[in-house]
Amino acid sequence: MNRITEALFSVDDHIIEPPHVYIDRVAAKFRSRAPQMTTTDDGTFWSFDGEPLPPGGFGLESAVGRDPKRWRFDPGCRLDEMREGCYSAKARLADMDQDGVACQVLFPSGVARFVGARFVLHPDKELALSCLRAYNDYMLEEWRAVAADRYLPVMILPLWDPKLAADEVYRTVELGAKTVSWSEGPHYMGLPVVDDLSWDPFFAAVTETGVPLSTHIGSSAQSPYNPAPGLPMAAFVTLVGLGGVIGATELMFSTVLRRWPEVQVLVSEGGIGWVPYILERADYVYRRHPLWTGIGVDSPNPREIFRRNINVCFIEDRAGIEMRHHIGVDKIMWEGDYPHTDSSWPNSRKILAGVLEGCTPEEIAAITHGNAERVYRHPIQPELAERLRG
Amino acid sequence: MNRITEALFSVDDHIIEPPHVYIDRVAAKFRSRAPQMTTTDDGTFWSFDGEPLPPGGFGLESAVGRDPKRWRFDPGCRLDEMREGCYSAKARLADMDQDGVACQVLFPSGVARFVGARFVLHPDKELALSCLRAYNDYMLEEWRAVAADRYLPVMILPLWDPKLAADEVYRTVELGAKTVSWSEGPHYMGLPVVDDLSWDPFFAAVTETGVPLSTHIGSSAQSPYNPAPGLPMAAFVTLVGLGGVIGATELMFSTVLRRWPEVQVLVSEGGIGWVPYILERADYVYRRHPLWTGIGVDSPNPREIFRRNINVCFIEDRAGIEMRHHIGVDKIMWEGDYPHTDSSWPNSRKILAGVLEGCTPEEIAAITHGNAERVYRHPIQPELAERLRG
Repeated sequence: MNRITEALFSVDDHIIEPPHVYIDRVAAKFRSRAPQMTTTDDGTFWSFDGEPLPPGGFGLESAVGRDPKRWRFDPGCRLDEMREGCYSAKARLADMDQDGVACQVLFPSGVARFVGARFVLHPDKELALSCLRAYNDYMLEEWRAVAADRYLPVMILPLWDPKLAADEVYRTVELGAKTVSWSEGPHYMGLPVVDDLSWDPFFAAVTETGVPLSTHIGSSAQSPYNPAPGLPMAAFVTLVGLGGVIGATELMFSTVLRRWPEVQVLVSEGGIGWVPYILERADYVYRRHPLWTGIGVDSPNPREIFRRNINVCFIEDRAGIEMRHHIGVDKIMWEGDYPHTDSSWPNSRKILAGVLEGCTPEEIAAITHGNAERVYRHPIQPELAERLRG
Repeated sequence: MNRITEALFSVDDHIIEPPHVYIDRVAAKFRSRAPQMTTTDDGTFWSFDGEPLPPGGFGLESAVGRDPKRWRFDPGCRLDEMREGCYSAKARLADMDQDGVACQVLFPSGVARFVGARFVLHPDKELALSCLRAYNDYMLEEWRAVAADRYLPVMILPLWDPKLAADEVYRTVELGAKTVSWSEGPHYMGLPVVDDLSWDPFFAAVTETGVPLSTHIGSSAQSPYNPAPGLPMAAFVTLVGLGGVIGATELMFSTVLRRWPEVQVLVSEGGIGWVPYILERADYVYRRHPLWTGIGVDSPNPREIFRRNINVCFIEDRAGIEMRHHIGVDKIMWEGDYPHTDSSWPNSRKILAGVLEGCTPEEIAAITHGNAERVYRHPIQPELAERLRG
């Protein structure tokens, strides 16, 4: 078996929002309406603008390092039951060192939700914008500022207004942001579909700044699959990547990535084993069904769109690695998913050694960090890489 | 490249219902309310119990042999625009001979729908039962009777009542039926979920008679994925197998196939390339998430349920064939999908030669006919196999 010695670049991790995120930086007039955390003996509960948020996500979202027997939806897990690395930038660095992880791409958790859906969906857009910027500023000032070489916070955007979203791209990139959150299906939030021309100001900003879109499954605040009552929850957990499968397929046939050919999309937590099947099927549909489906005869092959614009990542996905030459070794990244239930921490290198069995050293370097360094335009500092070498 | 010389056993094809199906055999008192076809210069239109059926399916469902430029949803295609093999048992035999196909498993088309959803969903259950039995009798008397060695009609069942469904299993098996239609999600039709104990009389009948369940994607009369307006229809066609992916995953974690361990399920038109990814992910979830998901610690691994009870098939799926050892060569069957748009007719052997490149002669024999002969308990007659040898 390979031994993995590389410093790792993880493209999908999360922070657990501590209570002060939405206190310190929210405009004074909104402070009482911004998300607030209450901790009781029964657990941790959040409310937003007078409404309680559904409890429970925190138990699974902060699972890292806890006994799987204590994983649970509900009631909310208290901060003092979590590893400190869930919510503390300093504490997490030690966890990353222990696991050989040089860099993490950081999504929010259950308050803002992965694409900021909590704010995108709120009717008071002035309040929403204030909270959303508070989150971004918190991430830049309390995570990136602690270790700009290691933390890449994913900025959440006011997607209800593509021009405002473009402004937030420019504003946060100026402050050091290297990626922004995008939804696998903005229409699930009542917004225009990804292929709608009204998004153009946003894609123009993304193109101009060169930030890749980090597109997390469930970022539209729903899943394309939920088991009916009486059907196994385990099927839901198994099929959690379907949002990525669907979103990527829609992108491959849409016009948006033809019109904005430089945009890079990462499908986060979608896995990779489905890619050869979908690329082959998409190519088949492209060749066999161009007319009645409206693909058109002068459209590029969806495989070419994937090759140029779409990137995928895995935690454990041996089937995908065996088929890596059908995916493109340069399209595959690794994610640690700290601190969620699927996180490989603190055994990432050991697990990767099994998954990457049979890969060449060059392939291992590309998959464990090189591809992410290129797409996120964030080379790992040589001295950091050397220090973390396993 | 291999040359495929075997006589083929296709596990997923369809008939186009001609108008007399629901006239000759429906009870006299229901004759005016049963499905009726009207042909005008604008096309073919069906009505049922006074309501027009949505037009258009026939254009795609009868695409075989027609110029792809003429493939269309709407208006309905007339019988005289179709190949006669779409609706004539005798004419189809010649098409099968031309393509080297010994046997076909025959689903209905857009009137009854693949699991008979048209009747299952109708409020007048007496009318529905009469129409549904008329369909089954038509298939047994006008298809199977023409070539019992070559046609395996899929029986549709009165699923609104599991005891009645069991009766129809016994009745039709007595008349020569070898498989029945099952839904990838009966709850989509307002029926209990597959894991509900109320289905037990049905599964008892299936177990006693030994008929495999032919489970076609979209058989519950809907797809788990439909593109939002403005998103490409080609994504829908690419993702058409998702219903099979979801249904198979639910079965692997449900109790039904533990309680009825002899039942064989075929996932029709779902493809195979997704299987290694889903099996690996299901195994991961089984090992990592047994408690909070409620899998339980004494449940069998979902991989074992797949190995024992679930079968899959493909039209063109090179990615799946390359990963056949992760699926199990004995789980993979071939389908011709005559007369739908994806049908490989009349080039099935040529296409298979490409898809099966690198397979051993034993693997080719298993995939092109042997596995289907075993699961459908229907050996190809030696003289037929010899006559069709290519």
